[in-house]
Amino acid sequence: MTEHVTSLNLCNPFDDDKLHEECGVFGIYGHSEAAALAALGLHALQHRGQEAAGIVSHDGRHFHSHKAMGKVGDNFSSEDVIKSLKGDAAVGHNRYATTGGTVLRNVQPIFADLANGGLAVAHNGNLTNASTLRRQLVAEGSIFQSTMDTEVIIHLVANSKKIKVVDRIVDAMHKITGAYSLVALTSKKLVGMRDPFGVRPLVLGKLDGAYILTSESCALDIIGAEFIRDVEPGEVIVIDETGISSTSPYTNPQKRFCIFEHIYFARPDSVVENRSVYDVRKGIGRQLAIENPVEADAVIPVPDSGTPAAIGYAEQSGLPFELGIIRNHYVGRTFIEPTDQIRHLGVKLKHNANQALIKGKRVVLVDDSIVRGTTSTKIVQMVRDAGAAEVHMRIASPPTTHSCFYGVDTPSRQKLLAAQYDIDEMCKFIGADSLSFISLDGLYVAMGEKGRNAATPQYCDACFTGEYPIDLVDHDSGADNELTLLSES
Amino acid sequence: MTEHVTSLNLCNPFDDDKLHEECGVFGIYGHSEAAALAALGLHALQHRGQEAAGIVSHDGRHFHSHKAMGKVGDNFSSEDVIKSLKGDAAVGHNRYATTGGTVLRNVQPIFADLANGGLAVAHNGNLTNASTLRRQLVAEGSIFQSTMDTEVIIHLVANSKKIKVVDRIVDAMHKITGAYSLVALTSKKLVGMRDPFGVRPLVLGKLDGAYILTSESCALDIIGAEFIRDVEPGEVIVIDETGISSTSPYTNPQKRFCIFEHIYFARPDSVVENRSVYDVRKGIGRQLAIENPVEADAVIPVPDSGTPAAIGYAEQSGLPFELGIIRNHYVGRTFIEPTDQIRHLGVKLKHNANQALIKGKRVVLVDDSIVRGTTSTKIVQMVRDAGAAEVHMRIASPPTTHSCFYGVDTPSRQKLLAAQYDIDEMCKFIGADSLSFISLDGLYVAMGEKGRNAATPQYCDACFTGEYPIDLVDHDSGADNELTLLSES
Amino acid sequence: MTEHVTSLNLCNPFDDDKLHEECGVFGIYGHSEAAALAALGLHALQHRGQEAAGIVSHDGRHFHSHKAMGKVGDNFSSEDVIKSLKGDAAVGHNRYATTGGTVLRNVQPIFADLANGGLAVAHNGNLTNASTLRRQLVAEGSIFQSTMDTEVIIHLVANSKKIKVVDRIVDAMHKITGAYSLVALTSKKLVGMRDPFGVRPLVLGKLDGAYILTSESCALDIIGAEFIRDVEPGEVIVIDETGISSTSPYTNPQKRFCIFEHIYFARPDSVVENRSVYDVRKGIGRQLAIENPVEADAVIPVPDSGTPAAIGYAEQSGLPFELGIIRNHYVGRTFIEPTDQIRHLGVKLKHNANQALIKGKRVVLVDDSIVRGTTSTKIVQMVRDAGAAEVHMRIASPPTTHSCFYGVDTPSRQKLLAAQYDIDEMCKFIGADSLSFISLDGLYVAMGEKGRNAATPQYCDACFTGEYPIDLVDHDSGADNELTLLSES
Amino acid sequence: MTEHVTSLNLCNPFDDDKLHEECGVFGIYGHSEAAALAALGLHALQHRGQEAAGIVSHDGRHFHSHKAMGKVGDNFSSEDVIKSLKGDAAVGHNRYATTGGTVLRNVQPIFADLANGGLAVAHNGNLTNASTLRRQLVAEGSIFQSTMDTEVIIHLVANSKKIKVVDRIVDAMHKITGAYSLVALTSKKLVGMRDPFGVRPLVLGKLDGAYILTSESCALDIIGAEFIRDVEPGEVIVIDETGISSTSPYTNPQKRFCIFEHIYFARPDSVVENRSVYDVRKGIGRQLAIENPVEADAVIPVPDSGTPAAIGYAEQSGLPFELGIIRNHYVGRTFIEPTDQIRHLGVKLKHNANQALIKGKRVVLVDDSIVRGTTSTKIVQMVRDAGAAEVHMRIASPPTTHSCFYGVDTPSRQKLLAAQYDIDEMCKFIGADSLSFISLDGLYVAMGEKGRNAATPQYCDACFTGEYPIDLVDHDSGADNELTLLSES
Repeated sequence: MTEHVTSLNLCNPFDDDKLHEECGVFGIYGHSEAAALAALGLHALQHRGQEAAGIVSHDGRHFHSHKAMGKVGDNFSSEDVIKSLKGDAAVGHNRYATTGGTVLRNVQPIFADLANGGLAVAHNGNLTNASTLRRQLVAEGSIFQSTMDTEVIIHLVANSKKIKVVDRIVDAMHKITGAYSLVALTSKKLVGMRDPFGVRPLVLGKLDGAYILTSESCALDIIGAEFIRDVEPGEVIVIDETGISSTSPYTNPQKRFCIFEHIYFARPDSVVENRSVYDVRKGIGRQLAIENPVEADAVIPVPDSGTPAAIGYAEQSGLPFELGIIRNHYVGRTFIEPTDQIRHLGVKLKHNANQALIKGKRVVLVDDSIVRGTTSTKIVQMVRDAGAAEVHMRIASPPTTHSCFYGVDTPSRQKLLAAQYDIDEMCKFIGADSLSFISLDGLYVAMGEKGRNAATPQYCDACFTGEYPIDLVDHDSGADNELTLLSES
Repeated sequence: MTEHVTSLNLCNPFDDDKLHEECGVFGIYGHSEAAALAALGLHALQHRGQEAAGIVSHDGRHFHSHKAMGKVGDNFSSEDVIKSLKGDAAVGHNRYATTGGTVLRNVQPIFADLANGGLAVAHNGNLTNASTLRRQLVAEGSIFQSTMDTEVIIHLVANSKKIKVVDRIVDAMHKITGAYSLVALTSKKLVGMRDPFGVRPLVLGKLDGAYILTSESCALDIIGAEFIRDVEPGEVIVIDETGISSTSPYTNPQKRFCIFEHIYFARPDSVVENRSVYDVRKGIGRQLAIENPVEADAVIPVPDSGTPAAIGYAEQSGLPFELGIIRNHYVGRTFIEPTDQIRHLGVKLKHNANQALIKGKRVVLVDDSIVRGTTSTKIVQMVRDAGAAEVHMRIASPPTTHSCFYGVDTPSRQKLLAAQYDIDEMCKFIGADSLSFISLDGLYVAMGEKGRNAATPQYCDACFTGEYPIDLVDHDSGADNELTLLSES
Repeated sequence: MTEHVTSLNLCNPFDDDKLHEECGVFGIYGHSEAAALAALGLHALQHRGQEAAGIVSHDGRHFHSHKAMGKVGDNFSSEDVIKSLKGDAAVGHNRYATTGGTVLRNVQPIFADLANGGLAVAHNGNLTNASTLRRQLVAEGSIFQSTMDTEVIIHLVANSKKIKVVDRIVDAMHKITGAYSLVALTSKKLVGMRDPFGVRPLVLGKLDGAYILTSESCALDIIGAEFIRDVEPGEVIVIDETGISSTSPYTNPQKRFCIFEHIYFARPDSVVENRSVYDVRKGIGRQLAIENPVEADAVIPVPDSGTPAAIGYAEQSGLPFELGIIRNHYVGRTFIEPTDQIRHLGVKLKHNANQALIKGKRVVLVDDSIVRGTTSTKIVQMVRDAGAAEVHMRIASPPTTHSCFYGVDTPSRQKLLAAQYDIDEMCKFIGADSLSFISLDGLYVAMGEKGRNAATPQYCDACFTGEYPIDLVDHDSGADNELTLLSES
Repeated sequence: MTEHVTSLNLCNPFDDDKLHEECGVFGIYGHSEAAALAALGLHALQHRGQEAAGIVSHDGRHFHSHKAMGKVGDNFSSEDVIKSLKGDAAVGHNRYATTGGTVLRNVQPIFADLANGGLAVAHNGNLTNASTLRRQLVAEGSIFQSTMDTEVIIHLVANSKKIKVVDRIVDAMHKITGAYSLVALTSKKLVGMRDPFGVRPLVLGKLDGAYILTSESCALDIIGAEFIRDVEPGEVIVIDETGISSTSPYTNPQKRFCIFEHIYFARPDSVVENRSVYDVRKGIGRQLAIENPVEADAVIPVPDSGTPAAIGYAEQSGLPFELGIIRNHYVGRTFIEPTDQIRHLGVKLKHNANQALIKGKRVVLVDDSIVRGTTSTKIVQMVRDAGAAEVHMRIASPPTTHSCFYGVDTPSRQKLLAAQYDIDEMCKFIGADSLSFISLDGLYVAMGEKGRNAATPQYCDACFTGEYPIDLVDHDSGADNELTLLSES
């Protein structure tokens, strides 16, 4: 019954050297299969968080909750579980941990029994003033049950002097700073809202007359729901038995959607902020080929996230697209506690170079980004070991030079390869014959813009530029240090 | 990771037809093996609650917590667990559920991160105004994480306007009504307190200079600690690095110790409220023999709780003491989901009549109490089936006619056999040739009193008399209905 | 899915310093609830083996098997399991490991698909020529799947040139030497047999027209079956749809029933070889008091196995019988990997001295036997620590000086206290004021004999005398060393 | 401890409508990290069997075994397990069940303690006279512990009259008929052998002076071992401390390698029978485009097995290669017991059509084969639902019309779509606008042959032609019915 999680079920073979999206959310109101549909939606959003999942439903009288460490499919597919989550409305959440340790208490949705009824909240993003607010709340007598940002929101709602739950939620919104796309369930309403910069995604859909609020359109596809529109930055959507309504409590919301969602986080079959992710990635690959051509024999994607850009690169360059790196799909929780022998073999557990193909060839490797550079180094070496004549690395994003504070798990700046080295040094570090990144403007061009608007950039690109659109309250005040007094085993 | 518990590990073979003590507590301050000693103390108190256990320790800087469903020995004996519970101070708790479902969140000690530091509380007893207080607290913005009474205390402490933690605790004490013996741990102090009637036990002990507060003296014996004294009704004991201090915030505490602790709850090798439990039980058996003699061939205890009284009865009556009912010690979680065939065999899984002994004999069965009467009925039948010539049942307590609201799990009144029937009817119900109970005055005599002081009884005997010394606030106001909005699976 | 067992669920608190019975068996033929009844019978025989259990049933066409490490109640109580064990006939087995490691493959009943149909065998006892036979069989091409004696029998049956299964079994019997009470199930018959000395028990019972063969009568009591008689030494009983038949393939069987079954192994409510075990034990206590009286204040049983003899001793001596040692029933799998601190506390986890009773008293402790003496030493110390004025140890069996080779787990001779020391030295070793054992002749007298018949003793008492009635073939030829080539994890 | 497996961890999203390879084997001799390397090799061969895995090692004195249901990575990655598998030699096995139920006893390698020492065998393939041999062996007194073909081999070895183990193995080979590539470990030797038709693959490799025998070259790549050569049909290779030797006990072995290994079973990065699997598959795609061109806008692989052929098809046809179907990598043990709602959603759990890409396009879907046709039907429908203007299905193998009896799990003939319908009917069944298969001769051309040699085909292509090169002894004699007398739960 101990709650520690020893290992994550990562899926991308090089996932440990990637940035990580923190969460996926799903809410549905007015469907007799609410919990089953929420489970499916969360399954479609599994790439946004594999550590834990939870669903809270409401049946008109009671709330029902099930949370579990691990994947949605492993924990929410039995008839028993789905039947226990009664009712026509549900909110669910996939978790990838950043703030808060990996115990069941820290799995969302969070539920609280407030004076005028229950409230369940599921949240994707990160508050930048959570620590500051938490200290104030504790000083006033609030008792926290978790170490999650989301609980700050719940306490603000509980302490609001407003009467109606939605007014209390809006009240809370005015106190928090940060990136947040959240769905909340009361005994009568499903509420969705996005921060005023719209950093994290949230879309509205519909199925059999029931409304859905979720992180990406792929969670609508899996259940055959219709995509309606993106929720707007700063918009609050309320769904109840009278229908749907929208308010915008913020006066000047300004869209700064996370550009990395298009580069890596979102599923290629999702449409986010009106663009096909697959299409954008192929476009980036084409632009990358225009900016950084090279004479070579084959374009090889680093699986799986580099594949669409590699297809675009191959099309633009006229070079053949080839599967030069074969991925072992059976990694699962593989080799959790490897022996030293196994550990030294490293990345080979997860893939293999296609020697018969690579031998003697000049290859272009296409990947989406470089974070620490450890994986790129291993891949270049593996491809060389397989006999490549030349290895040219092409990256479908600009150099990642800054940490994210808006709900993405990034290493500290000093661990980002591009924060330490220039491109030549990086090329030497990873051992490639050449290394190029798409330019910042080129990236915007590939997104359909004329280029980056330096005054008010069209996207949040802080990880490439260090221009943070939202105040880093805790970080700047030094309040973001450890809050946990209790360690559980 | 689901938290439901399907079955309790009961130990007494007829435990499902007994009253149940709700909890055992243990606190220690100033010993380098604090958590290991707490685990042992809780093991010695396992009879007070087998459903779950928890320990919170403090190492001078941080608190550490481990909680688990199940027995102490199964969950707190590994070196890993004990080592994770660092520090010189610890509080622990054994749980038998009454209020609050069986989920890990409801396992004590409860911990909260208050404005001036952490607080862990472990509680034995039951508040009679918990629901009333909880509603007030929620209305003022408190968010509850459990359904336990104990959390009401924590929120009262969090919301107190006093500065020092001990003052806040005393502040909380003045708001609560009910039976409570609790131990609390802050980053600097171990606090113990008993309600002003001293209904539930709490004793003070010492080992190698470290003070201990725990429910029964047997938890001192197991670690070789010295028994010092009972904590007084309404007393607050504070232990810190400066030593031990005591205050009595209540003006007129009046001792009304639970008499059923002597009859059944406490371990026979404990000394509670200055009396050897074994000795008291033998004395009750002797008094029972004086009041209710019978011509017979053997005195047979209903194992194991009837044994000391049976020895006393045998000594007084001069009849031989015999093991006529053999208990199967291997019941464990036995036959959790029995087939119908097995279910019909009922009580036989847990014991067997010693046919060779019983055949043709007139036997006196001695048991500690009759609750619903279902078990007594089966035992009498089993002894008859084994060939007994006559079966005389003698009960070492007066008829149990009323429910307990002070921390004991009793069936509702209408299920208590003695609330429905007179003794003749009860005798017929259980199928015995004769049935007698010790008289109420006889019980007090066996306790060393001259008899019961009707004006201000020396003990709480509400289960026999209906005279409840502490106000039943929630019960009388109708506030004690369901609070849970959320059901977890 | 690894099969190691880390700990046994022992029940007797001092069990690790006792001899251990190796197994219990149960067979039933002709009852629609065969498997459920077998599960109950095995539950009643749990004291004969707690490590693992198995049941094989036959439904007229197929055999069905379920085996599991752990207790019967934990593994054979679900409706699913019982329903999967279809049919009107079943054999079952409780295992306490001696030969063969603790893997599931070594759990009985063993099943084999022979040329003329399936055969399942469950066995209590130990073959003394198993290693010798096994080597011969392997040399002839037999492949063993386990390291159990029982499999030798199966291979002998498989290789017999006889046609009928029963003839093959008898053929096998003539090749094996040792102690064995076994039940076997074919597609048409239930077979039971005892070795020609009848060392291990086997009784015949009947329920609703169905015959039962099992180790002790308590397994009949639990299901309300009628006891018919003991199976005779060397007798083969065959039960099929035509009824029951008996043959005696041995010319001169000579009864040498294990006397330790009466002293310790059998349940006190069982009747074995026509004597009530409880009655015998009380008689031994009385004889012990006659032979070894002492001036004292109380007779205290070492729980639980010393209790009947203590009652007898108290009756005979006129001293009061008192519960001076309280057992903690919650040991379970307790403290599997204790910390050093906990380990040093040793035996105290399992019981506590009743200090209030013992203080200042001269006490007689009654126990059934002394094996290594480690536990007796701890008990005497504990009773002294509780303030006893004098401690006199009385043992309800003669000194255990020799190992058993007939199905009882004994330490090697050099670890038996009585093989190393005389009684005075033993008394000093355990720290008692006096120590006495019942005499060998006294033991026979307590069994209703005039004394031990030295020429042909009425019982097997090799553990007290070293007179082994059955040849120790492997032991004497040195063949009993390690056979296992494969270690599994 | 029950051994049933409720679900397989399949990886290919449409795996339930594919043929399944039954097993992968790995043997290594003379390396200090033998077991760790075996675990890695089995991990690389996980696609050949995901149900269970086992490794047996030998340390010069003892054999050590670990077997587990589930994937290699989940069960063989801990240091504890690897350390327990001591020694310089090891054999391992991945299992996909066909004969024999899914209990741990049926997990290979099988070990037996023979008269001249231990023998462990791991086997890929299927004996076509196993039932016939088994009956003979049982009649002669052999006792089987499993229901696996492999055990027949072990018993034949045990009963051989030859002296040396290798001679006994060859003796056994002459009695068995069928497809088998096996590795065996004795206390002194590692033995590898292939059936005289070489149906299943087996390759020889070398690492640091240690020899390796394994199913595919990808198991050499993962540990950086050198590929030496394929083991020849009918060849027996013996490796011991004196080096490596080879014999060919069959007079006229004739190579008939399974052509489906190239089409689907083997990993694309493996080189089998001297050909790169990836290269062969691309070549098949090209040939398919030559034989069956179509006007369209995009070539879309059915992931993941159709991808190499789709790349070849796109190259040859000049049409763009696009990712039109996105696979959800998180299926794992997903939705084991789905609710009806979830079940009806079917294949959508595992992938999603890339709507933004497909809408309005004429698409060519490329898949490796059609078995039952159920998956193809769903995929075509899904692509149509996504808005495709036309859907043309191209299959990279001829119609699968016959079952395999040589170690591949095929449905019975009547369930094979191509055994029931002609191509037009199949096209209608799956709902495509057109459907074409590569021709049988075209397949051979793509393999580098001039065409199929009808007299003595270069490969076993019985699944396309019904020409079975090896006698179907059990099948033709009707001996292949149920052997299991015992069902275990």
